[in-house]
Amino acid sequence: MSSARLKGVGVSAGRASGPVVRVADPLPEPAATPAPADPAAEAARIKPAAEAVAARLNERAEAASGEAKAVLETTAMMAADPSLASQAEKLVTARSLPAARAVFEAAETFAAALAAAGGYMAERVKDIRDVRDRIVAELMGVEPPGVPTLTGPTVLIARDLAPADTAGLDPTKVLALVTEEGGPTSHTAILARSLGIPAVVATTGLLALGEIRGLIVDGDTGVVEVPAGQVQVLAAGAGKEFHWNGVGITFDGNRIKVLANVGSAADATAAATNGAEGVGLFRTEFCYLSATNEPSVAEQTAAYSAVLKPFAGKPVTVRTLDAGADKPLAFLAPEPEPNPALGVRGLRVAFTRTDVLDRQLEAIAAAAAETGALVQVMAPMVATAEEASWFAERVRAAGIAKAGVMIEVPAAALTAREIFDAVDFVSLGTNDLAQYTFAADRQVGAVAALNDPWQPALLRLIALVGKAAGEVGKPAGVCGEAAADPHLAAVLVGLGMTSLSMNAGALNRVGAGLAEVHFDQCQLAAKAALATHDPEHARLAARAALTPRRQH
Amino acid sequence: MSSARLKGVGVSAGRASGPVVRVADPLPEPAATPAPADPAAEAARIKPAAEAVAARLNERAEAASGEAKAVLETTAMMAADPSLASQAEKLVTARSLPAARAVFEAAETFAAALAAAGGYMAERVKDIRDVRDRIVAELMGVEPPGVPTLTGPTVLIARDLAPADTAGLDPTKVLALVTEEGGPTSHTAILARSLGIPAVVATTGLLALGEIRGLIVDGDTGVVEVPAGQVQVLAAGAGKEFHWNGVGITFDGNRIKVLANVGSAADATAAATNGAEGVGLFRTEFCYLSATNEPSVAEQTAAYSAVLKPFAGKPVTVRTLDAGADKPLAFLAPEPEPNPALGVRGLRVAFTRTDVLDRQLEAIAAAAAETGALVQVMAPMVATAEEASWFAERVRAAGIAKAGVMIEVPAAALTAREIFDAVDFVSLGTNDLAQYTFAADRQVGAVAALNDPWQPALLRLIALVGKAAGEVGKPAGVCGEAAADPHLAAVLVGLGMTSLSMNAGALNRVGAGLAEVHFDQCQLAAKAALATHDPEHARLAARAALTPRRQH
Repeated sequence: MSSARLKGVGVSAGRASGPVVRVADPLPEPAATPAPADPAAEAARIKPAAEAVAARLNERAEAASGEAKAVLETTAMMAADPSLASQAEKLVTARSLPAARAVFEAAETFAAALAAAGGYMAERVKDIRDVRDRIVAELMGVEPPGVPTLTGPTVLIARDLAPADTAGLDPTKVLALVTEEGGPTSHTAILARSLGIPAVVATTGLLALGEIRGLIVDGDTGVVEVPAGQVQVLAAGAGKEFHWNGVGITFDGNRIKVLANVGSAADATAAATNGAEGVGLFRTEFCYLSATNEPSVAEQTAAYSAVLKPFAGKPVTVRTLDAGADKPLAFLAPEPEPNPALGVRGLRVAFTRTDVLDRQLEAIAAAAAETGALVQVMAPMVATAEEASWFAERVRAAGIAKAGVMIEVPAAALTAREIFDAVDFVSLGTNDLAQYTFAADRQVGAVAALNDPWQPALLRLIALVGKAAGEVGKPAGVCGEAAADPHLAAVLVGLGMTSLSMNAGALNRVGAGLAEVHFDQCQLAAKAALATHDPEHARLAARAALTPRRQH
Repeated sequence: MSSARLKGVGVSAGRASGPVVRVADPLPEPAATPAPADPAAEAARIKPAAEAVAARLNERAEAASGEAKAVLETTAMMAADPSLASQAEKLVTARSLPAARAVFEAAETFAAALAAAGGYMAERVKDIRDVRDRIVAELMGVEPPGVPTLTGPTVLIARDLAPADTAGLDPTKVLALVTEEGGPTSHTAILARSLGIPAVVATTGLLALGEIRGLIVDGDTGVVEVPAGQVQVLAAGAGKEFHWNGVGITFDGNRIKVLANVGSAADATAAATNGAEGVGLFRTEFCYLSATNEPSVAEQTAAYSAVLKPFAGKPVTVRTLDAGADKPLAFLAPEPEPNPALGVRGLRVAFTRTDVLDRQLEAIAAAAAETGALVQVMAPMVATAEEASWFAERVRAAGIAKAGVMIEVPAAALTAREIFDAVDFVSLGTNDLAQYTFAADRQVGAVAALNDPWQPALLRLIALVGKAAGEVGKPAGVCGEAAADPHLAAVLVGLGMTSLSMNAGALNRVGAGLAEVHFDQCQLAAKAALATHDPEHARLAARAALTPRRQH
């Protein structure tokens, strides 16, 4: 029984229901007229609005952890920056602009200055615009654009979702996504599939429903219903629940380690609590990002130990510093580059600053000894066997037994066999690997559809790595977003991956999914997906191969 | 007999000799002291220096053609810009700076403004710095950095060569390269191999030789000699000469079309004069670059006809507009992007501006009809079979019989078989393909070694395309720098390429090289190169496979 029923296009499978939160549409550019009757009073509205925005962001920062916390804190600082407010106030009085328009223009001046600084600073342009929109919304008394803070399990509805809307999203709270517009390769679809939640796009009439309490979403049929009575909170896969015992294994007993991606001590605690068998990707950037100077070996050791502690006796793969012109560190002073993603980043920085790498390896070795975690170390942005070999030598010289590399540059996948000769293991970074394989910036919405992890071209590169791993009998993991999608996780296993690493929230879903499939189903799903010519067909082919035996 | 003999590392094979031109070292940053005794007189020096630089650049522009001409003209305009000179003059009088320092600082202000504009403008930063260095050198009475205009066949010597030094180089005048520093993967080595000329690096004592008239360079042994008497001009391969009859064919009769890359009517004439069998890559950007509005269909038709004219009755592959945030056109108004090379460029622009593509196709069809050239059309930056199919449909709708795509995105190479289902031919752009495969910006010196076209990972991607071409019996060409290296050209043939396209200067060298090898040698060379783990070994392995029978 439902009071309304709409039909859209199902783009991510599963059925879920729950209360609805509407993602506000993007704000229009505020008008430069009419001139305020009392410019001084108009100007005086700006500072309180900025402070209110900063306070709300700080509140959200307190509730967040890891990278999300750092992002929110930075944004709050930008909002509270008195120079932004005072510049806007001057525009109100000098040019008789409405306050919202003045904030808009002042923020654009700041954005231009950031863009002028290039590299990392230029990437902050989107942050200053986010702050701008929040203050403008506050002044205009409308909802700020983007996803509001979710207080519980939620069905998100929107006209369409842009990457910016969902950047700060807490994926554990989203039950389903429904949009009025968008298509099967929209950001909404990609996001939903990566989270493994149901999604329906192109749902004509959705926003005309007005205020609704809840929705029932069927991502298979594309049907969206407004329940007649009380809305039930039901997550996809709920009912059959995720019964995972914390050991990654297929139904027929093939062992696949289910690991977590972490970037802070808080992440590590969450990962351990959620049953991670270990850590497949420990990002060490957090230790450097707030420092103006390189942290000492002792400081690094302490920071790494805090992350390793919950994993005493368990495997942890530490990735060495992934800095560069796109993520600059003051003490490394990178040159501005026309395309930072294609420049001196990751291990490439270590070729000239080998001392920084050596000190990091020393600290990692010390933290491993201190905590008893079974640590192995890998390098980011390796392109050739020669680079892998150079890195492995330094890792071993630091007394760390096992050295590996990230495979995130297409060339590394194409020479996986030669790279395995130099290292003990590899880990696929599917997000960057897709970015380079499709020459499609991960940050640019207009090319986002190319970065679908189900793209057959990407799966074929992964297959090369899996084949090489099988030949030499060494481990190959995946630590990109792809591993968090249960169907894709099964395909990755079929392609020869021996471990999967993901955010803590996805562990149970993926672990439980693995336990339901047979290894030969994974291989059949992989083979079927490889043979298709687009992500849609890859997804369908894999699902067909995985479904039958999962049901009994 | 020689008066001096040095031993370096031979990095590009062959023996050549000729007069020497020294590439000046980079200029140091001019000092801010001492303050000029007569600031007014010091300031008055600036304008004449800038004008002298502009005049010399314009002189070079007149002698150049195509893209080089456009670059030189733009640089001359920058040098003649009165606002640069007047800003520098103000710095001399206001802050008592020496003229050279004032020009340096004024140029940096301009550079910052360009960087602030982002995208294409930001890339012009290196041009303004080039102008700056030329004016500073003029004021200081020293040689401007970089390669001076070559008036005849020359052996270039330098401390080391940076990409910027050789950007405006006329490759037809360079006999050999010798550097005091550098290694086997330096820019010097890469450049020499791509030009097919001998090179020796790490030649200790080279610059201490002082003023020398000529050098004899052996790129195989690494020996560099100063001749005792008169220096003879001898190009590598001279003595055995390039006997090419204008038909691309291996010794044993396998037909491989030897085509030219052109970007203007002047290029097309040069290509026809040098015996090109047709055009493998006609870059159409020239038609748009100087326009503030989109050129009309009639204007485009006239521009294309001028290029097609020398090739009536011969095959010409036209590439549609390759614009984007890295090469912006005013009427397309691209958004600034964090990594323009990974953004909306090439065919991706046409997805939203299909009207621009359709008008270009209309003009190409008209120019083909007008000139009788056998025109086929291909799209740049294609990543998937779906995109290829979309493009082919539009090409056919425009009445052009054959549609193809560039393979320059790794994903396209990985799905070549599916792409062939949608199009009639493909053409490999090895320069961009290498850039994405290695995630290494072509513009950044620090990662240049990764972009070596002999990288096994790149060859393996090309092999996938060659295999797919063989399976479907459709043509696959190469139009990147790789095709201009005779040994690599043979390897490409062995990998299944059916045509090679290059700058006009390389046609005879490559045509003659092909005529000396057997097809099975090409296949053996390809197989050997594929199995290596770095470019050096790939090069050696191919050379070994190609050498024996070439000699009799």
